[in-house]
Amino acid sequence: METQDPAGTDLATLVKQTEGGHSLFEDAAREQPIPVCSVFLDKDGTIRPASFRETQTVFTCQEHNSILEVFPKTIAKSRNIILEAHPSEAHPAVAGKRVAVLFSGGPAAGGHNVLAGLKLVLGDDNTLLGIRKGPKGLLSGDVFEITKSDVDRIINTGGFNFLGTDRTKIKTPEQFEKVKNTVLENRLDGLIIVGGDDSNTNAAFIAEYLETEGIPCSVIGIPKTIDGDMAAGKYLPISFGYDTATKVYAELTGNLAQDAASAVKYYHFVKLMGRTASKITLEVALQTKPAIALISEEIAAENMSLGDIVDEIVRIIVLRRLKGINHGVVLVPEGLIEFVPEMRTLILELNRALADYERDIKDLPTLRNKLEFLYPHLSPQSAQLMASLPDEIEEMLILDRDDHGNVKVSQIETEKLLIDKIRYKMSEIKRHTEKYFGDGEGLVPASPQQIDKFKVATFSSQSHFLGYEGRSGKPTSFDAAFTFALGLTAGSLVLAGKTGYMAAVTDFDKGGTVLALPITGLITCEMRKGKEEMVIEKSLVELDSPAFKLFAAHREKWAQEDLFSSPGPIQHWGPASRQIPISVALNQGYADYRTFNLGEERKIRLE
Amino acid sequence: METQDPAGTDLATLVKQTEGGHSLFEDAAREQPIPVCSVFLDKDGTIRPASFRETQTVFTCQEHNSILEVFPKTIAKSRNIILEAHPSEAHPAVAGKRVAVLFSGGPAAGGHNVLAGLKLVLGDDNTLLGIRKGPKGLLSGDVFEITKSDVDRIINTGGFNFLGTDRTKIKTPEQFEKVKNTVLENRLDGLIIVGGDDSNTNAAFIAEYLETEGIPCSVIGIPKTIDGDMAAGKYLPISFGYDTATKVYAELTGNLAQDAASAVKYYHFVKLMGRTASKITLEVALQTKPAIALISEEIAAENMSLGDIVDEIVRIIVLRRLKGINHGVVLVPEGLIEFVPEMRTLILELNRALADYERDIKDLPTLRNKLEFLYPHLSPQSAQLMASLPDEIEEMLILDRDDHGNVKVSQIETEKLLIDKIRYKMSEIKRHTEKYFGDGEGLVPASPQQIDKFKVATFSSQSHFLGYEGRSGKPTSFDAAFTFALGLTAGSLVLAGKTGYMAAVTDFDKGGTVLALPITGLITCEMRKGKEEMVIEKSLVELDSPAFKLFAAHREKWAQEDLFSSPGPIQHWGPASRQIPISVALNQGYADYRTFNLGEERKIRLE
Repeated sequence: METQDPAGTDLATLVKQTEGGHSLFEDAAREQPIPVCSVFLDKDGTIRPASFRETQTVFTCQEHNSILEVFPKTIAKSRNIILEAHPSEAHPAVAGKRVAVLFSGGPAAGGHNVLAGLKLVLGDDNTLLGIRKGPKGLLSGDVFEITKSDVDRIINTGGFNFLGTDRTKIKTPEQFEKVKNTVLENRLDGLIIVGGDDSNTNAAFIAEYLETEGIPCSVIGIPKTIDGDMAAGKYLPISFGYDTATKVYAELTGNLAQDAASAVKYYHFVKLMGRTASKITLEVALQTKPAIALISEEIAAENMSLGDIVDEIVRIIVLRRLKGINHGVVLVPEGLIEFVPEMRTLILELNRALADYERDIKDLPTLRNKLEFLYPHLSPQSAQLMASLPDEIEEMLILDRDDHGNVKVSQIETEKLLIDKIRYKMSEIKRHTEKYFGDGEGLVPASPQQIDKFKVATFSSQSHFLGYEGRSGKPTSFDAAFTFALGLTAGSLVLAGKTGYMAAVTDFDKGGTVLALPITGLITCEMRKGKEEMVIEKSLVELDSPAFKLFAAHREKWAQEDLFSSPGPIQHWGPASRQIPISVALNQGYADYRTFNLGEERKIRLE
Repeated sequence: METQDPAGTDLATLVKQTEGGHSLFEDAAREQPIPVCSVFLDKDGTIRPASFRETQTVFTCQEHNSILEVFPKTIAKSRNIILEAHPSEAHPAVAGKRVAVLFSGGPAAGGHNVLAGLKLVLGDDNTLLGIRKGPKGLLSGDVFEITKSDVDRIINTGGFNFLGTDRTKIKTPEQFEKVKNTVLENRLDGLIIVGGDDSNTNAAFIAEYLETEGIPCSVIGIPKTIDGDMAAGKYLPISFGYDTATKVYAELTGNLAQDAASAVKYYHFVKLMGRTASKITLEVALQTKPAIALISEEIAAENMSLGDIVDEIVRIIVLRRLKGINHGVVLVPEGLIEFVPEMRTLILELNRALADYERDIKDLPTLRNKLEFLYPHLSPQSAQLMASLPDEIEEMLILDRDDHGNVKVSQIETEKLLIDKIRYKMSEIKRHTEKYFGDGEGLVPASPQQIDKFKVATFSSQSHFLGYEGRSGKPTSFDAAFTFALGLTAGSLVLAGKTGYMAAVTDFDKGGTVLALPITGLITCEMRKGKEEMVIEKSLVELDSPAFKLFAAHREKWAQEDLFSSPGPIQHWGPASRQIPISVALNQGYADYRTFNLGEERKIRLE
């Protein structure tokens, strides 16, 4: 440790200097310039708030009347009309406003640049406050001022760690009362909620509540979720964090595809985070061209059973093996199980039976006994399906239940369930090759030599779950620019006195168009746990979207040949550093996904 | 999908063009220049073979005499003297040589650049052949010619997929006979084996065998292993693949540390690949500064029990929680369990008891019955330890056995075992705070308020295994340069008619010194499965090395504060793209780890 460099700093000191977020990479990232949409620039190129005008577009949904009943005040003001930002005319500068911001739900890359955008657009004449630990901190009033040096420190870094986050839902009158207290005690003129569908729905409720209470505080939502399930067509192509998360997962999936082709003996089963939509899986598939990618929305639409899914995977494994390819990658969306209609039915029936016969089941000593008791209380189809599941899964379905007594669907290890069933099916084919191969109808053509080779090969698999590692990475160039623009937008909206809107940016290919979407226009009624609730509808993979159609048109080729590509680790410098999600470019009709345009770059340094 | 870009290429075509390893990243990576050590350059800057001279250094180990008996021919030739490369004097160019190369063992980043280096140094006058699917392909003679366009396609890409790899060990006389046949049938003048300790040992045996048979074929090893356990002090600071793997794991660990600090509720337990040495864990710890990193070598040296390890982790979790930090990252080396002395003893005793009483145990119906039978056949210490393990682990220890009837140690989910025991211990502390906190001796100082807060917090954890995703990524700039140099070295050695050497490069900070290490000088005798075997000794973490000492000096601060840093995804362009492992720089006494110097860069394009 006595090693000295010519400048006199020893290596131990160098290592110590990287503590607390100062790796070579993090320090270099802080210095990276960020593009700024032109609506936020004055003639001198200084950043300033934008002003907003109504567009011709009104968001109305089927349940407009019932939603109007819940949000009379905010809808009266916004009339659910989308606003568009324009360069601010020489209006008097707004001063003295106090604006607080919080993160809600799971982390996503770019949150810190939202804060940077807010701080810059509020300028020296207004105050930016941070709320610690998410909605919980809003309730308890855990508020502090965000300084310029804070922003210089966190800009372009990943995670939500500067503020922290949590998943508290604000629902009860007591909670709303607490929000009011925090707003009043801190004399807030604005409250920015960075979150997903539930958090933005919450923002709409808080906006309505504060309006009703006569408290002039703008509430603005910012669309965040790595799942990509918060989007609004051409008005909001995607939420922030999706680009970074899918690129982390695509890096690792590409590496695993290369590993599979190198070791030439494994199928890597990769479960990808995303509780509901398969948007992450679709994007990763477009990036990496795996042997197989399951899309939940398609499985539901085609009414596929678990057996159908296994058959399809086995069909591809068999075809590849006949060509000498005994390896590959299978992508499995985390939310799959709830999209398989028969599993959905089974889970519903189980929830009911477990509730009806809780006592009886509890008293039975073994899993077998419990199962024997339960089968007659399920429909024949569900009982049969249940019996076909491996013991661990049956056990999980019966014993692991949430606070409401429901089956914990998210705990089910779908990829392991699939592997189990595939292994059985493959061994069955090996034992009865005559039933599967040959020249007859319904048989797969294969020569005797091919069949012999088929028999000696084994099915080996490794399973992986990619999730947490994609939520808190440093934002990609795109997410860094997008979130900075969202921060500038939200700050401008507060200064303009708007409430109940979600900040949005679109036209990523031509400088960025900045919008404000009335959240009430995005809300629909949905049944959740047997109750009607007002929620923002999740944006799922649409089977007629260009992105899905491109995937569907190519997947058979990717299945039969080994055409994977490896998009590599996220680059922040060099030729590969300015990509956007392929699926977004396709669905928005952009000409390219290899670069974006959100304005001219400038280096952001506040002190 | 009708989207058109100005050049007339639609987006669907663009996506299609990326199939088969042509992502934007991969295409740009192929164009990246590679540094070339000056010994391989002539005056015009053209790449040419180096020549070799003996140094003053002789490798001799304790068992020199018994090793001499096994390798009389190669040692007579090499006298175990290290060779150093020098710029080739105007010797007549070597032509007409046929050299074959294979990958052996798990993939590591940079294998394709070894091939590129070989192809370039052999030039147009000699032939480079590839052997498919590792040692298995050497036995079956699965050989083909590697062309210039192959090299242009694979240069700077990750994985071993161009050739494939496997783990066949060449041991029996029949196998050696097959190797001879392949060498003779393909008229090979050289055989390059890219692999880890076992594969390089194999290379030494093959070299000796071919010498004995009077077949003039040079056998050269190339040091590959992500584990970093193949190294030879200043002569070979590290094997290739380690830099890339540790940087992939450090990216993900940094992301998880940021995620932990964002969600403020989890400890992420990260198990890191590396069957024996904890070198990967040490490097990732130096890169990321986690709350806790376990180093197997230290645990063995300190004779720590499983309980001691749990106590130490709990101590840190408690201290952090008292400071309001209820999250963090814990690094667990994959090979840990075999370094815990009491577990080692238990496994040895179990292997014996399971062998002695195989029948009796088999006939017992339940796990409980089997355990009751087994306990009296273990030492009291081992029986007690066994009884303290969770049921799943006990089951795994008894039921999951390898082909030799031994416990499958690698299958033990160490991180889950630790989590289980930590959870229990934490709940115990909560129930009996008076036994742990206060002012008395052996108690942790804490105020009543701190204790109240301590009691309401929960211990939540997520476990991860980082392994396969680090083996096949695109090589870092360093691994790309290092492997290219190793290929140039191995090719030069074959052209110089040397056999039984391992290619090595050192002095990464000053242009690279190119060496050839006599493999027989690295070999020692080791007991494996009760038999004495000749093997290359694994390079473990040394507790008096600068890298470990720096880690040990700082870890308590990293434990008590939240000082993690996030080294980010591997960069291939820009300011963070030329780093080498921190631990290597420390142990080699370099002045810096942020950049390396392996010569002047040039773009490699063969066609």
